[in-house]
Amino acid sequence: MSELSFPASSAAMLESRLPPTTPSGASSRPFVTLTFATSLDSSLSLAPGVRTRLSGPDSKAMTHYLRSQHAAILVGVSTLLADSPALNCRIVGATSQPRPIIIDPHLRWVPSHADKVLEVARLGNGLAPFVLTGVGVQSLPAASVALLKQHGGKYIHVPTILGPNGRMRFDWHDVFEALFREDLSSVMVEGGGQIINSLLDPHFHNLVDSVIVTIAPTWLGQGGVVVSPERLQDTAGVPIPVARLSNVSWHPFGEDVVLCGKLHG
Amino acid sequence: MSELSFPASSAAMLESRLPPTTPSGASSRPFVTLTFATSLDSSLSLAPGVRTRLSGPDSKAMTHYLRSQHAAILVGVSTLLADSPALNCRIVGATSQPRPIIIDPHLRWVPSHADKVLEVARLGNGLAPFVLTGVGVQSLPAASVALLKQHGGKYIHVPTILGPNGRMRFDWHDVFEALFREDLSSVMVEGGGQIINSLLDPHFHNLVDSVIVTIAPTWLGQGGVVVSPERLQDTAGVPIPVARLSNVSWHPFGEDVVLCGKLHG
Repeated sequence: MSELSFPASSAAMLESRLPPTTPSGASSRPFVTLTFATSLDSSLSLAPGVRTRLSGPDSKAMTHYLRSQHAAILVGVSTLLADSPALNCRIVGATSQPRPIIIDPHLRWVPSHADKVLEVARLGNGLAPFVLTGVGVQSLPAASVALLKQHGGKYIHVPTILGPNGRMRFDWHDVFEALFREDLSSVMVEGGGQIINSLLDPHFHNLVDSVIVTIAPTWLGQGGVVVSPERLQDTAGVPIPVARLSNVSWHPFGEDVVLCGKLHG
Repeated sequence: MSELSFPASSAAMLESRLPPTTPSGASSRPFVTLTFATSLDSSLSLAPGVRTRLSGPDSKAMTHYLRSQHAAILVGVSTLLADSPALNCRIVGATSQPRPIIIDPHLRWVPSHADKVLEVARLGNGLAPFVLTGVGVQSLPAASVALLKQHGGKYIHVPTILGPNGRMRFDWHDVFEALFREDLSSVMVEGGGQIINSLLDPHFHNLVDSVIVTIAPTWLGQGGVVVSPERLQDTAGVPIPVARLSNVSWHPFGEDVVLCGKLHG
């Protein structure tokens, strides 16, 4: 597996945006970083399930550097099913691996020996995932429980609520509480589109400590997987902006730009 | 009318992106700059017809500086009807005004004395518009022709073609040819969404000399007026990116970032 290197000067520019190296102990939830890369038309990929190379090699190294600075990395089950990502850290000199967290309320993922995320765990190049699910402990398929356990992963039950689309979903408060109970002091939320859009909802802004967005100078065109949160309206029904970053900095980075900011004051 | 100022240092960073001060004479079309401001989710505004303050005061001054560097500024009729914009240049020290160009294939705009763009022309603070329309000269309403003429503007007939949505539209080649015949050596295309998306179509990339996009660190949410060109597919029907900028530079600018690039090699 090829290793990536990330220059110290670039790391320095991100330092103030990352989890404290010694957690304060006063917090009752993990430090949450929301990070992703989009096109100029705010697409993560050309279509659901289509892996799209958006940003340059520098940005890829940054993603892995960021992973090295978090206790956990979180993705939705759709991302896992679409890409079979390794969800590990391949930066030069990484001394520990982040814990992959899979958001899977309805248990759509059936773990298999061939899954990349389990393969890297077997090889000692990453950790096995914790799968957050709304399915009750008694209803979990025994084979999946055993396979995860054998790799060092597990299922964690999180209560579900009825989402606006009529499907059961998690409340982000419950998700981060579950991670905190597992002694995971920081988590990097990576995607996909539904996960990101739901976390950009104003109800959850106070749970997000840092936002790091990479933008590539390309337009993917209509029909992509778009980052754009649900519309917000004022009491008169007039649409208003959903989120604005404060404490903003922009860092040109190869052909891309990296935007850092905060969702709450 | 309050005047805006734009620092010389900022102007310097844009210099290589702007029309040559002495047109080469070899060109057979105007120098075309495509410029607009979006949110992170690529929206120009919260909804059609809703004027949305996206970018900061620095960006507004930049827009007016850019106008001072072009012979013409071009908008679609929807933008004119929605905003009644002045379409003039309010930068300190501007020695000439750009010619407003309105893209109005079906003659939706009925000019009135109260229109801002005509008001500023009467006051000597701007030029009256040239309206590009597919309507034949004989069919133009006499009162509109007279009102425009009285302010120094006019209608220009441009042939229409059948667009993919079943409505008549212009071919950008014909639009820029018409402007060139009017001795307009440079044009800044400002919006709105339909105009921008159609110009991002690969058929027209070779007509665009410079792209300047301002991005504000906010998400407007779903349902806005979005910049995202029509999807492009390869011969196998697989979606591919519609456009990628080359010769890219990013310039942090207050809370916003300004992206400069080119659509063709």
